[in-house]
Amino acid sequence: MESYPVSIEKLIEEFAKLPSVGYKTAQRLTLHILNLPKEEVEAFAEALVKARGTIKYCKVCGNYTDTDPCAICRNPNRDKSIVCVVEQPKDIMSLEKVREFNGLYHVLHGNISPMAGRGPNDINLKSLITRMNGEVKEVIVATNPNIEGEATAMYISKILKPLEVKVTRIAHGIPVGGDLDYADEVTLSKALEGRREI
Amino acid sequence: MESYPVSIEKLIEEFAKLPSVGYKTAQRLTLHILNLPKEEVEAFAEALVKARGTIKYCKVCGNYTDTDPCAICRNPNRDKSIVCVVEQPKDIMSLEKVREFNGLYHVLHGNISPMAGRGPNDINLKSLITRMNGEVKEVIVATNPNIEGEATAMYISKILKPLEVKVTRIAHGIPVGGDLDYADEVTLSKALEGRREI
Repeated sequence: MESYPVSIEKLIEEFAKLPSVGYKTAQRLTLHILNLPKEEVEAFAEALVKARGTIKYCKVCGNYTDTDPCAICRNPNRDKSIVCVVEQPKDIMSLEKVREFNGLYHVLHGNISPMAGRGPNDINLKSLITRMNGEVKEVIVATNPNIEGEATAMYISKILKPLEVKVTRIAHGIPVGGDLDYADEVTLSKALEGRREI
Repeated sequence: MESYPVSIEKLIEEFAKLPSVGYKTAQRLTLHILNLPKEEVEAFAEALVKARGTIKYCKVCGNYTDTDPCAICRNPNRDKSIVCVVEQPKDIMSLEKVREFNGLYHVLHGNISPMAGRGPNDINLKSLITRMNGEVKEVIVATNPNIEGEATAMYISKILKPLEVKVTRIAHGIPVGGDLDYADEVTLSKALEGRREI
């Protein structure tokens, strides 16, 4: 039984290491690469090395950045009295797309999960406390609405309250365009709980 | 609205160019890359450039190879009297996995499709004819069982018959483990047509 030449097998292996890429997909991606112009493949390879090489965590907020502090932390037009706590850097991008929030961020790089053995010291939490220097008036906790995210939110609320910082949680409820029929019971109960006068 | 640092955006763009990878997946893959050890990312980049740089088509059969002729064409233990024609190099790998076929291959790199304006001159067909040097006794056409694949098979049969080469087609029928109930009518009709005494 013949197999692919070594350099093809190696590239298939590398692609197959990526999350949610199996052998078949890796093979398809590799054959696609072989049909590309040489310069395009080199540009891809360069982008890989460059991204990994130049990107670090912002020392203030923990976001990905190529400068330190990051562009958001350095921006003089952003409201420094309000900090939004998220689990991952990609959550910042989701929130930025909304164009509603003009404060700062703090990235935890994870959440607290007693089940998985992840405690408060395993996430980027200490540096959040050091940021509470009197200038910050409100911390919005925008961790994910699941068990770990809620546990993390409760913990943050508990440790920040003594510092006289207002801690808020993003609202849970029926998504806009959603259907009551398809909402699960927990979401429905949260939607009722969070009702507002109109 | 802040976006990702330039080098992250660039890598997301590069991933999004791959087939069946959208922006969200490209973003997920990029964030995965940022969390990998530097050496692993460099190994990935090197595999990309190396595969594209060292791989060429075998001058005899058209398969991907890093030597010319390829390992299969050079192998003295393979039966040179029988050539299996496939559309793509990956079809060779599928057939090799079966470990039943010990002949040579010929890769068309496509098929004949009058609808899409692809004629016999647009695929690797001329070099198949030059391979009919008297040593080849049988050509198995293993193009895909769809309209283009069948048209290609008919064309190959037509041009090779005058050269006194036996041209055969792989069998169509119900896949092993399949269910008659779920088979389409064309497949069922092919399965009946190709029935054999047991």
